[in-house]
Amino acid sequence: MSQQHDTPRRLRLGMVGGGQGAFIGGVHRIAARLDDHYELVAGAFASDPERSRAAATELHVAEERAYPDYRTMAEAERLRQDGIDVVAIVTPNHLHFDVARTFLEAGIHVICDKPMTTNLEDAQSLAELVEHSGLFFGLTHNYSGHPLVRQARDMVAAGELGELRVVQVEYPQDWLSTRLEESGVKQAEWRTDPQRSGPAGCLGDIGTHAYHLARFVTGLELESLAADLHTFVEGRALDDNVHMMLRFKGGARGMLWSSQVSPGNENGLRLRVYGSRGGLEWSQEEPNRLLHSPLGEPSRILTRNGPGLGEAALAAARIPPGHPEGYLEAFAQLYGDFAEQIRARQAGRSADALTLGTPGVSDGVDGLRFITRALESSASGGVWVNA
Amino acid sequence: MSQQHDTPRRLRLGMVGGGQGAFIGGVHRIAARLDDHYELVAGAFASDPERSRAAATELHVAEERAYPDYRTMAEAERLRQDGIDVVAIVTPNHLHFDVARTFLEAGIHVICDKPMTTNLEDAQSLAELVEHSGLFFGLTHNYSGHPLVRQARDMVAAGELGELRVVQVEYPQDWLSTRLEESGVKQAEWRTDPQRSGPAGCLGDIGTHAYHLARFVTGLELESLAADLHTFVEGRALDDNVHMMLRFKGGARGMLWSSQVSPGNENGLRLRVYGSRGGLEWSQEEPNRLLHSPLGEPSRILTRNGPGLGEAALAAARIPPGHPEGYLEAFAQLYGDFAEQIRARQAGRSADALTLGTPGVSDGVDGLRFITRALESSASGGVWVNA
Amino acid sequence: MSQQHDTPRRLRLGMVGGGQGAFIGGVHRIAARLDDHYELVAGAFASDPERSRAAATELHVAEERAYPDYRTMAEAERLRQDGIDVVAIVTPNHLHFDVARTFLEAGIHVICDKPMTTNLEDAQSLAELVEHSGLFFGLTHNYSGHPLVRQARDMVAAGELGELRVVQVEYPQDWLSTRLEESGVKQAEWRTDPQRSGPAGCLGDIGTHAYHLARFVTGLELESLAADLHTFVEGRALDDNVHMMLRFKGGARGMLWSSQVSPGNENGLRLRVYGSRGGLEWSQEEPNRLLHSPLGEPSRILTRNGPGLGEAALAAARIPPGHPEGYLEAFAQLYGDFAEQIRARQAGRSADALTLGTPGVSDGVDGLRFITRALESSASGGVWVNA
Amino acid sequence: MSQQHDTPRRLRLGMVGGGQGAFIGGVHRIAARLDDHYELVAGAFASDPERSRAAATELHVAEERAYPDYRTMAEAERLRQDGIDVVAIVTPNHLHFDVARTFLEAGIHVICDKPMTTNLEDAQSLAELVEHSGLFFGLTHNYSGHPLVRQARDMVAAGELGELRVVQVEYPQDWLSTRLEESGVKQAEWRTDPQRSGPAGCLGDIGTHAYHLARFVTGLELESLAADLHTFVEGRALDDNVHMMLRFKGGARGMLWSSQVSPGNENGLRLRVYGSRGGLEWSQEEPNRLLHSPLGEPSRILTRNGPGLGEAALAAARIPPGHPEGYLEAFAQLYGDFAEQIRARQAGRSADALTLGTPGVSDGVDGLRFITRALESSASGGVWVNA
Repeated sequence: MSQQHDTPRRLRLGMVGGGQGAFIGGVHRIAARLDDHYELVAGAFASDPERSRAAATELHVAEERAYPDYRTMAEAERLRQDGIDVVAIVTPNHLHFDVARTFLEAGIHVICDKPMTTNLEDAQSLAELVEHSGLFFGLTHNYSGHPLVRQARDMVAAGELGELRVVQVEYPQDWLSTRLEESGVKQAEWRTDPQRSGPAGCLGDIGTHAYHLARFVTGLELESLAADLHTFVEGRALDDNVHMMLRFKGGARGMLWSSQVSPGNENGLRLRVYGSRGGLEWSQEEPNRLLHSPLGEPSRILTRNGPGLGEAALAAARIPPGHPEGYLEAFAQLYGDFAEQIRARQAGRSADALTLGTPGVSDGVDGLRFITRALESSASGGVWVNA
Repeated sequence: MSQQHDTPRRLRLGMVGGGQGAFIGGVHRIAARLDDHYELVAGAFASDPERSRAAATELHVAEERAYPDYRTMAEAERLRQDGIDVVAIVTPNHLHFDVARTFLEAGIHVICDKPMTTNLEDAQSLAELVEHSGLFFGLTHNYSGHPLVRQARDMVAAGELGELRVVQVEYPQDWLSTRLEESGVKQAEWRTDPQRSGPAGCLGDIGTHAYHLARFVTGLELESLAADLHTFVEGRALDDNVHMMLRFKGGARGMLWSSQVSPGNENGLRLRVYGSRGGLEWSQEEPNRLLHSPLGEPSRILTRNGPGLGEAALAAARIPPGHPEGYLEAFAQLYGDFAEQIRARQAGRSADALTLGTPGVSDGVDGLRFITRALESSASGGVWVNA
Repeated sequence: MSQQHDTPRRLRLGMVGGGQGAFIGGVHRIAARLDDHYELVAGAFASDPERSRAAATELHVAEERAYPDYRTMAEAERLRQDGIDVVAIVTPNHLHFDVARTFLEAGIHVICDKPMTTNLEDAQSLAELVEHSGLFFGLTHNYSGHPLVRQARDMVAAGELGELRVVQVEYPQDWLSTRLEESGVKQAEWRTDPQRSGPAGCLGDIGTHAYHLARFVTGLELESLAADLHTFVEGRALDDNVHMMLRFKGGARGMLWSSQVSPGNENGLRLRVYGSRGGLEWSQEEPNRLLHSPLGEPSRILTRNGPGLGEAALAAARIPPGHPEGYLEAFAQLYGDFAEQIRARQAGRSADALTLGTPGVSDGVDGLRFITRALESSASGGVWVNA
Repeated sequence: MSQQHDTPRRLRLGMVGGGQGAFIGGVHRIAARLDDHYELVAGAFASDPERSRAAATELHVAEERAYPDYRTMAEAERLRQDGIDVVAIVTPNHLHFDVARTFLEAGIHVICDKPMTTNLEDAQSLAELVEHSGLFFGLTHNYSGHPLVRQARDMVAAGELGELRVVQVEYPQDWLSTRLEESGVKQAEWRTDPQRSGPAGCLGDIGTHAYHLARFVTGLELESLAADLHTFVEGRALDDNVHMMLRFKGGARGMLWSSQVSPGNENGLRLRVYGSRGGLEWSQEEPNRLLHSPLGEPSRILTRNGPGLGEAALAAARIPPGHPEGYLEAFAQLYGDFAEQIRARQAGRSADALTLGTPGVSDGVDGLRFITRALESSASGGVWVNA
């Protein structure tokens, strides 16, 4: 259990989206609660005011702070003495931009689900807005919250793999192997709808997670890519499988695969990184292990909170090795990092060095550039394009 | 995300124990918070009043409800209009009995860590007290909160394994391979101290978890056992390795191994159950998978929230398959079940059928009987004794 | 143990290559011996006559049949009453073509290691030669000898995966992460030498195995590919990492990765195939398991010789499930299939239906076409080229 | 590929047992052939002379050396100039003793399957006979042929685990979960028949393998045991499940479980050894990996022929790491060791130090003592008995 040296008050959290039938809203709420840094006090949980109010009741949010829409909410919270410190945006993708802008303009910090926007232009506008505002903007690329992902990042940065050569990242799922969006499954509906998801399907939904994870761990910058996007399920409007070759600045090469039509894969996010002196392998489905293969020596199994870890990994673990932490804890870790940074800003301090790398608006821009270039490449038949 | 059909108020939770340096207290707090059924409002967090108050501040507990000791707390909370609904007992083992008795006598529901007491007599007294009080008593055999453990239990009960034959359960650790209790590690100190842990070391600390898991899943009752307890680390006062053979009523046989001196094992709790028609295997370190081997067919990998599961397993999962849940979520599940039962009592309803099997005072008595018999057997050279 | 219904005499085997310091020659000899279908009776084991003779002595080959070179050997064996039935060619790649031609012209059946030749033209010439000769030509794409690879092939052919969509194949190694070819390691020397290996390094050495495995299991034909070959180790003349995107006729898409510079990977050949109704996963390093994931059902673990297998897989296993067979047994299986086909030809019978798919000269041509197109694509910057 | 420095002639091998329908005979033949140290030249393959002759034909054994019974064979081979060097005994257990005696008395070296005899007295007689004869006697406890088992043994002997504390060994199977012996399955028939197997069922068949493996790796001597044998399948005459607690001289403790009624287990032989400084884990079904857990450091995965291995392990591997070897190769390794020792005796040399530990007649006596004591313990209700 990590020590809490001082105990500031809980941050007041508002939420946009996340009403009944939503998935990621509930995840954000657990993540905010788990380490006790936040209390949920306001929300515009649904586009329909009645459903927003019903959600608020369920979530112990006072009736007066259950808003019919996010504009009203931003305005009202801005004016309250005890207004929210930060808003979590958990709507479908197409709303991220305007909701974020609205709250930033109201002087409220923002936590936003990914992808940040549905196009690169919006992402860049948002980045400017954030910069001018001086406000905090956190993007929930949640896999970067795993202790062993941070360990991997630190090992790469410390040169333990030597010069990086090969980066293999993949994120296969199977849940869209059939045309689930026709069966009334809300999650499938908006994720396959260009109006709500933007022009990238599987690419935007999980391909960006894979890309961010690779970037987060390796620190490499993309130079160019060749992408082959495909839609296997007939009648679907967006891609459901992504094949990509990557070239990084400095000479490393990689591949990225994401898929929603590969039976037997639930959330198979996996990263393998190889350098001149060693390799690393991490899998989201078994996040409490990191395989480290120093060249010419037996591979070692690093475990969360186990022997041989560095400071960043130890700081991000709650319970002893062998007691698995998972998806929600990693998500909570990000919320904890966000809290630390928000409080630092509120106190006029700079954020702790440990939170360097916490995904923010520049990762959002980078992600949208990645999506945009991949769509361009694929539309041109899979040619190489500069990143 | 499971649906919340109505949203009663959060239960008011008090805590005894769990101050700085404690492990399990923090776990209980996260577990209570995770699904938003509780709010922590009072506590006697440490034997030293000053430290108790310091902990309260850290935990956002009002100063007036930071108590110097548990007796004062029970009395004060009993008298408050907004007194706690339930107390969580997370002290070293030797205090469980008196703390529980004190709160029960104050008319307050109890959640108690395991082992319930340090001897069988106390356990039986407590059972009577609970029965007469009409209050809720939950025991945190937390591994029973895992969705796939519940799936296993349901499959056995439904006869999918046929007649049970062999039960292999083990719980190896390595953290006490050296005399850590001499190094100022608080967790090691009290766990190896007969005054605070009772007469069973490894047996009481983790052997009981293994035993409870086997009982919970199989429903089998122990008939007799032969136990070979041993202390490998010189100078240690309690056992650090447990070997045991088991005979169950109805004819099944089993083995139980728990150890705190087996390097490479973090929390290797694992259960394997075999019957005339099939086998099951579950491991705490990879709790999102359950291996089911129908006799004469390929083994199947059941995954948390994945295809092929029954109602109880699905009800206990929060997030989609492939996004791992872990130790804290299972613990939270128990807290959720406890909340459901406490609310049912408060409303004069009987508890939901789904919560059958939630570990309580009779499991505590059973666990202490198991400990007592194992100590007797081992003291007599490892002979068979009736359970 | 599979039944041997009749027992024809052992086939007389000759070998070209495979003297001291060679790796694959020894493997071929064990493979030939394991199921007792062959006896090694002649050879030109090394380019140096003295070393060839020394090897013969070691291998219990009569002195008179230890030849100074393969031409002499072909001529002498052709004339003997008890001449070899078949020759195994286990030289470096650049000699395959001429040795094969020489023995075919002498009327002797051929078993050849892969890649078949060092360029497509030679491969096509050889194919014509084989066709005109009426002789048997086997190519040791040995991974197709694994029982569960054959099971996978049969399941795909039977439609158990539905329409194929995604094919992911990879073959990472790490042994050439440093410039081992400068250290006097013979295996590294010739494999990185264009004179002896041909123009493809990693691509020809193991990329072709990955490609063949994917083709063998799926039955899909390649339509086009985009390849990004790279040499990471400075001063090396041939590629040591291969990234490739694949499009198959009929619409399936795939990726292929092979590498010799990825630390922690020994022989990580792995194939994953996904269709509209299910998925399959097989890994060379754990060849006794095949994961089958029917869409919407729990994944199943098929085991070699275990329940749920078809005829082809059962016919290729020697010992009970749970007793692992490995690389040598799969190689031996191919030798067994070859023996069956050679005997069939000798007896004027057509080869058993079970041996359909045994890799031969057309696979060799296909492999060289694959290599050639990949080299072309990569040389043009990784563009898509037709297969 | 290990080097062969000189190449003596192949040893002439005879076989008793191993006709059609047998399992282990075929395994011995492959093992003898694999590394080319033997040629099978004679046999009494079946109790029925006609079937013995038929088997001989299948096995390329000359008609004149297909014997109607083992006595005739021993006598005839003794008198031949080119008589067999060694006989392999692969009959059901009850014949081992007399066959071995017969060949020893004929001055012929012996390789015998396990268990060596069906009772301790015979085992001791045989040991005396062997001693007086000066002949070689090898017992095929084949799991000791695995390179990584030898690595484990060497690491323990070198003190890498410190003082040994806990030994957990198990060997579960499932193939006798039903009354297969009634279905005409020859392997099941004799293994469950006291007349042919002796008084121990599962205990003798696989429990002895588990016991030998533990002894081989740890070097520990048994002090006492408590055994709970049970027959779960109604009507079966011999035990099909074995539970046992072990105490070793010097203070280590252990458990042994073997079962033939545990669905989902094929040949789950697994050994875990823990000492004051580290732990080791090895599983027969994945024999190419050995997990080494130095206390307080990350666990390491040692791989067959991979980095970090000692001389004995390297000497016992044929092919590069990542190309799996399995059951047959380990069996062949034992045959290779036997050949080395037989040749040493024939040459009047002492056997190579590397072959120390090769299982022989004293292991056979030890195994029978283990069986005898376990039967005694269980018959007395599972009490502790001295070993």
